Amino acid sequence: MTLIADIMTEIETVMGLVDESQLTDAMTELNKKRRVYVVGAGRSGFIAKSFAMRLMHIGYNVYVMGETITPSIQAGDVLVAISGSGSTSSVVETAQKAKKLGLSIVSVTSDETSPLAAVADKLIIVPGATKTGAGVKSIQLLSTLFDQTVHITLDALTLMLSRRDQTSNEDALHAHVNVE
Amino acid sequence: MTLIADIMTEIETVMGLVDESQLTDAMTELNKKRRVYVVGAGRSGFIAKSFAMRLMHIGYNVYVMGETITPSIQAGDVLVAISGSGSTSSVVETAQKAKKLGLSIVSVTSDETSPLAAVADKLIIVPGATKTGAGVKSIQLLSTLFDQTVHITLDALTLMLSRRDQTSNEDALHAHVNVE
Amino acid sequence: MTLIADIMTEIETVMGLVDESQLTDAMTELNKKRRVYVVGAGRSGFIAKSFAMRLMHIGYNVYVMGETITPSIQAGDVLVAISGSGSTSSVVETAQKAKKLGLSIVSVTSDETSPLAAVADKLIIVPGATKTGAGVKSIQLLSTLFDQTVHITLDALTLMLSRRDQTSNEDALHAHVNVE
Amino acid sequence: MTLIADIMTEIETVMGLVDESQLTDAMTELNKKRRVYVVGAGRSGFIAKSFAMRLMHIGYNVYVMGETITPSIQAGDVLVAISGSGSTSSVVETAQKAKKLGLSIVSVTSDETSPLAAVADKLIIVPGATKTGAGVKSIQLLSTLFDQTVHITLDALTLMLSRRDQTSNEDALHAHVNVE
Repeated sequence: MTLIADIMTEIETVMGLVDESQLTDAMTELNKKRRVYVVGAGRSGFIAKSFAMRLMHIGYNVYVMGETITPSIQAGDVLVAISGSGSTSSVVETAQKAKKLGLSIVSVTSDETSPLAAVADKLIIVPGATKTGAGVKSIQLLSTLFDQTVHITLDALTLMLSRRDQTSNEDALHAHVNVE
Repeated sequence: MTLIADIMTEIETVMGLVDESQLTDAMTELNKKRRVYVVGAGRSGFIAKSFAMRLMHIGYNVYVMGETITPSIQAGDVLVAISGSGSTSSVVETAQKAKKLGLSIVSVTSDETSPLAAVADKLIIVPGATKTGAGVKSIQLLSTLFDQTVHITLDALTLMLSRRDQTSNEDALHAHVNVE
Repeated sequence: MTLIADIMTEIETVMGLVDESQLTDAMTELNKKRRVYVVGAGRSGFIAKSFAMRLMHIGYNVYVMGETITPSIQAGDVLVAISGSGSTSSVVETAQKAKKLGLSIVSVTSDETSPLAAVADKLIIVPGATKTGAGVKSIQLLSTLFDQTVHITLDALTLMLSRRDQTSNEDALHAHVNVE
Repeated sequence: MTLIADIMTEIETVMGLVDESQLTDAMTELNKKRRVYVVGAGRSGFIAKSFAMRLMHIGYNVYVMGETITPSIQAGDVLVAISGSGSTSSVVETAQKAKKLGLSIVSVTSDETSPLAAVADKLIIVPGATKTGAGVKSIQLLSTLFDQTVHITLDALTLMLSRRDQTSNEDALHAHVNVE
């Protein structure tokens, strides 16, 4: 009883610090006509994939860096890059290379002074505790609080996009894989 | 502001309905001497992988069904199976075959009347809305509310296991991949 | 020295039995205007992904069953399904469901009497040894000879498609991921 | 008929240039008591995973860099790194970091003058054409000839290991996933 309540208190604290106007601002980079790429390592990578899957459901042309059918990135594409510390080497390098190639970068991180924040065109700060010590303190292991709150934040962003685009739950269900 | 608040209200409602004693009960099946397998489809699959990764961090011998180095399952192993509807065909079939082979099944689902619940040795009910209509109603798309609340529930379970086993954050950091 | 020679003799024997006219026939189902889905389990799954990646390089609209951004299948799409035994349950079930939904099925298997062969619109027989005992006998472990020869067969098919479509190596290099 | 024959001629030429004594030498680094990690990008990554899966089947303790349950690397572990050009940035960086951490490096590449070759404790040269122009010339797209011949080379290595270790096909079948 108390453990779940304690965890929920942590999550509420962090979500209370997420600035919804940063989501509104990031939305201006995201639409159905641009290719969207996502990247993240470890558990942030699973959240990145969860976000990408839902973007596909609402009709976006989205790819996960490192998956089978992901094509080369080109000027005009958008990269959503996730790292709690903002310093995970593979994620930062991908964002820096993408920036040079002419992509817009949406950085999602706990640390606004990090290299990943530095390269951002649009910045979404989710101040959950990470394994490097940034963010709101937590009783949970490693970057767990960051993972949880990025999950919720990107689901909020998806909901905002679907409303702007007038995409219904039925539309999303139609795109959802039907053999699993 | 209000959208994140609305989503948080949904999550709080569901988490208030998760019975922590079901987690305590499931813990009796999970320890470092048994092999633990996880399975899930779509976004539930990413939550299953996030859970598996954290179990590895705290010293468990864990495998994801379908990944490269996952060996055959054997009597005495444990399977943690996740499906919001409890009727995702690949997940249910895996759980049923595993049951016949002598594994213990921990089912995580929104629907206690589902086939996945029926095969469970230990049942964890997370009543978030799913794409088939089970669970607490939600303004979010498809099974999003289920995904979010299973994520939190399994992180709570991991924290409970790490405390029981006296595994510290430093122990977990040592196991965390160091080249990424 | 002799071991590699022995393996090459096995591969040459199987490839001498692959009927190139079956590839020509399968090509009629594959073009840039149709969505192509691929499915396989275990090592056949990695060959399926290798094939899908190359199809992407030559400009096809291709998806891997089970990956993040794979949308629902629809009538008019094509499924390429790989199983040495032709009886791997997840692959056969996917092919059968896809058939019912109106997809064309290209089955790649060692066993022409298998359930996967039975559901095929186009059949490509690659008679390398499989772990169930079908195909040319082998000194190698499990379905290794099947994996090797399906790899070569699908690369031959890709080359035939690229020539028909007049897609150059430079075109393929342009599509190849540029941040890795 | 002629296209498959042409491809087979290319493969035979490359395999005739693979030095089996390099495999024998690499075997001294590989045994059931050491952890083995594999890494590769793109299609080389799928070959790396195919190799890892078979190592698991013959009883090795093997991990794929980037998969869910892969733990931190430690001194005394072995890394098998694959890159046709030997200069794929993520693969070379992983090998260099692993070297510093005290791992043995087995490099598999087409180019003996590459950065990946430079970091090797054991070097396996597979001179198939790559997308950067190294290796035996090919009519096939990009690094296809390298992929095919690395596939065969690592299967030969696996067979040599299984014979040295007296691991039978039945042993391998027992480890092979039994729910798929």
